[in-house]
Amino acid sequence: MSIHHPRTWEGRAFLATSLDGYVARRNHDLAWLTDPPPSAGHVEPQPSDAVPSYDEHLAGVDHVLMGRGTYEVVRRFDEWPYPDHQVLVLSHTLNHGDDRITVVRSTSEAVRTLTDRDSQAVYVDGAGVVSDWLARGLIDDLVLTRAPVVLGDGIALFGPVRDDLRFVHLGTSWNEHGYLTTHYRVVHPEPRTRRRPKPTQTPTPTPTPSDG
Amino acid sequence: MSIHHPRTWEGRAFLATSLDGYVARRNHDLAWLTDPPPSAGHVEPQPSDAVPSYDEHLAGVDHVLMGRGTYEVVRRFDEWPYPDHQVLVLSHTLNHGDDRITVVRSTSEAVRTLTDRDSQAVYVDGAGVVSDWLARGLIDDLVLTRAPVVLGDGIALFGPVRDDLRFVHLGTSWNEHGYLTTHYRVVHPEPRTRRRPKPTQTPTPTPTPSDG
Repeated sequence: MSIHHPRTWEGRAFLATSLDGYVARRNHDLAWLTDPPPSAGHVEPQPSDAVPSYDEHLAGVDHVLMGRGTYEVVRRFDEWPYPDHQVLVLSHTLNHGDDRITVVRSTSEAVRTLTDRDSQAVYVDGAGVVSDWLARGLIDDLVLTRAPVVLGDGIALFGPVRDDLRFVHLGTSWNEHGYLTTHYRVVHPEPRTRRRPKPTQTPTPTPTPSDG
Repeated sequence: MSIHHPRTWEGRAFLATSLDGYVARRNHDLAWLTDPPPSAGHVEPQPSDAVPSYDEHLAGVDHVLMGRGTYEVVRRFDEWPYPDHQVLVLSHTLNHGDDRITVVRSTSEAVRTLTDRDSQAVYVDGAGVVSDWLARGLIDDLVLTRAPVVLGDGIALFGPVRDDLRFVHLGTSWNEHGYLTTHYRVVHPEPRTRRRPKPTQTPTPTPTPSDG
């Protein structure tokens, strides 16, 4: 199955960057985000029903997909953060004895696995994978937080794209620390996502421009 | 006068970037910003008194400072956009017969000129100069608009900094096209700006760490 065929699941990203677009420092440090120096004077917080919390986001997905780098960070956590989710790790080389995860060797294999497993929504995490999946049209939903800091260098969220990616602004909230969170829908230039077919329907492959 | 001495004027930036932080494409194209394709579904606009409009911003400054690149774009406009402002162009090489501008050869000369002229506030424009002046601690106020598009490449607003730059979030608004505008104050790690001294006071130079 080509990744350009209509998908039956949604790709969703939920992450935070500095004002200059870094998800972490080069050494993977996140203290600038999680433990900022005290500051005062930020405008009063403003919540929004249109912006999901992290818990709401997590409750809305059945799978989590991450790259090898993110996995190496997450597996060292005191507590495995995804006990209720199926977790895919995208890696060409990882050999593991971790029965909490499934390793997929390529984006096509990840896509096929999600489809075969009847996934409805996958949380795509890690700057590299999110950036790549955005560029491939595999992300539909983005919840992006901006911390009020410029780092000057780090691991950038966004990378090259073939065509402009456009987004619909669904809502924005902010907290008392000056962190803004915006909920975007990705505008796909051609329909790549469709509703899950009803059980009585037989999905038929749809030709894409590159097939024709 | 060292640029680290307390300033009697404010540096202010007012600009827009893509979600991935570009102020323009590499070829300086801005149509993605000024003439986006029609899109629907954006959340209802939300204005904010804490976010100045461009006209309010412009009315609050007496000087405009720009780099050579921005000047070359602006001087070709049908109408000179700063008839009511004193304009400084930062360029090592520009020789001109344009009596609408004053050329300054260096940041120190720009700083000295603003101080000598009793400036209260300067609008600093152009990604290169804004980024450099942010890093030098010469920007106090930033109004930053984010268009809901990822370009993948272009002229980046932010560049390297020696230390993290922190900001206070004063307010955010958005329009019906999904453009978010946030008003930030720059947090200076040590006091670099102070109120204009009253006429009876004699300003005394304050030593900086590098002097001591």
